Amino acid sequence: MSRSVVAAMTAYTLELREAEIKLNQNESGEDIPRAWKERVLERMLDRPWNRYPDFESMGLRTALARAYGYEAENILVGNGSNELLAATIGAFVGPGTPVVLPKPTFALYEKLVTVAGGTVMPMPIDPSTGLLPLEAMLRAATPDAVIMFCSPNNPTGGVLPPDGLSALLATGATVLFDRAYGDFHEDAMPPLHDRLVTFSTFSKAWGLAGLRVGWLASTAATCREIRKVKLPYSLNIISEAVAETALEDRPRRDANVARIIAERARLFEAMQAIDGVTPCPSRANFIFFRVREPRRVFDELCARGVLIREYADALRVSIGTREENDRFLEALRSCV
Amino acid sequence: MSRSVVAAMTAYTLELREAEIKLNQNESGEDIPRAWKERVLERMLDRPWNRYPDFESMGLRTALARAYGYEAENILVGNGSNELLAATIGAFVGPGTPVVLPKPTFALYEKLVTVAGGTVMPMPIDPSTGLLPLEAMLRAATPDAVIMFCSPNNPTGGVLPPDGLSALLATGATVLFDRAYGDFHEDAMPPLHDRLVTFSTFSKAWGLAGLRVGWLASTAATCREIRKVKLPYSLNIISEAVAETALEDRPRRDANVARIIAERARLFEAMQAIDGVTPCPSRANFIFFRVREPRRVFDELCARGVLIREYADALRVSIGTREENDRFLEALRSCV
Repeated sequence: MSRSVVAAMTAYTLELREAEIKLNQNESGEDIPRAWKERVLERMLDRPWNRYPDFESMGLRTALARAYGYEAENILVGNGSNELLAATIGAFVGPGTPVVLPKPTFALYEKLVTVAGGTVMPMPIDPSTGLLPLEAMLRAATPDAVIMFCSPNNPTGGVLPPDGLSALLATGATVLFDRAYGDFHEDAMPPLHDRLVTFSTFSKAWGLAGLRVGWLASTAATCREIRKVKLPYSLNIISEAVAETALEDRPRRDANVARIIAERARLFEAMQAIDGVTPCPSRANFIFFRVREPRRVFDELCARGVLIREYADALRVSIGTREENDRFLEALRSCV
Repeated sequence: MSRSVVAAMTAYTLELREAEIKLNQNESGEDIPRAWKERVLERMLDRPWNRYPDFESMGLRTALARAYGYEAENILVGNGSNELLAATIGAFVGPGTPVVLPKPTFALYEKLVTVAGGTVMPMPIDPSTGLLPLEAMLRAATPDAVIMFCSPNNPTGGVLPPDGLSALLATGATVLFDRAYGDFHEDAMPPLHDRLVTFSTFSKAWGLAGLRVGWLASTAATCREIRKVKLPYSLNIISEAVAETALEDRPRRDANVARIIAERARLFEAMQAIDGVTPCPSRANFIFFRVREPRRVFDELCARGVLIREYADALRVSIGTREENDRFLEALRSCV
């Protein structure tokens, strides 16, 4: 028998539908150039596949440290930032630990906290403001609490107000900051702090969701604690090499980010102009929006070949390529 | 501050030393043929890397189900069996859950149980018998307990006695059976049971440690519970494709296993003939052995270019290629 907390949980699910235009998972619309894939795969032919990856993942940690101005000891890499979130929650959240979360947010946070036995303290978001509920989070935070959030937030797109991070740290709480969508907000990486862990991913701005590579940054002391919980060898040799190669081509990432930000502005304006559609301000690579009868709109978009993401009372569309976004707008206009 | 159980833990470490002959991690000595790597990498050029992996990993789960006579619903795949062990412990072990483990065994088990808040109940192994301590495990097992073991056991090489599994299940406990080295024992996959989860890996017999692919088998109901805890998208698209390709070439795996078993017999006999070396009977791809002054022998082997694994009062050598094993024997003879 599984534990009672697990038996009471529902699985993390995803509505599996086939669609021509896939705007449901906040992926980058642009694939890696074929020549670039060939280069990294060619490199892999000479690597032994029968040997475990480097125990310390020094290649990628060093490359990230160089790219972001850290030391390798400030970085851990893993199989997507999900794995690092899980390890960090394992290190900081035990039975009864209060965990302050904005709501709605990425569903995985609550699941991981529940498995760890923590107590979720949800802080409602008003998506129309484009901001996370900093005041409520500050009121709920205590030195024994963990504060966990994603800024820009998934699915609403809002960010932590300026100086929010230092105010949260001043409460004495441990702060887990998921920067999965931070590249689209063009924020800077925050300064290191023993009670702050920042999570980043290669899945969004770098366009490598299929390879599953994430990383975290904190002080060396905090990284050492998380590493006790993290699984060894969690990043395979090929994904590690792909991420290292990606870091060598920063201009490609920057162009991808600039393209997505420009498309976000265009899409937002076009959605605002559609009667019955209320998009929320977004700093991410998606737009959260309200319509009457979201379920019907979701289904009708699907029937027109456009798959987006459905929430209880709203919808979320990822920013795709220009053509994908146009197809979405056309379909949306015809069904609201 | 990390939780007290984590602060008290030591990190899973590996002595990092460079050596010409690497017999310290129970890897397969044979790499995948280059033509085989080229085939799977060629296939990867046409896959979108910017898209998440299939949410259900149906390709590999279906291939495993076909290969081992299950249905896909009986299988979960993950980023090495380590990840699946962690998820399963998350599903079954909570604060105070008694967890019966042989000792010594794979260090990760105790670490995962500690993070989950479980109570480790270690059952000492006498490695000279070549068997796990079934009687002691049976005496300790209760319906609320989890029994966790690896057969053949790492690092001692012994197995669960025949009918051990059914006796353990008869106690009412939940049984987590790590078959990481089962291919070298030539055992069969056990029948499915709601309270039995069997873990397998592509790292050993299949020779794919660098790609990090593992899988588990249980009833559909138990797989559903574990899936609630398991991270989504934990297997990247390339490793999944490599494992699928591996399953298409079963004869290569069988030849690798037969070669390792033959080398194990040869190595065991040669080690027995060395004065002062006491190898323990092994059904795995390594041999656990006693010498006087294991630390000195470990260091002297290292100085001769042969890296093995050191334990408190014994050593473990992985079965490598014939040439690697000969180099190890020669070095061992010269330093005991």
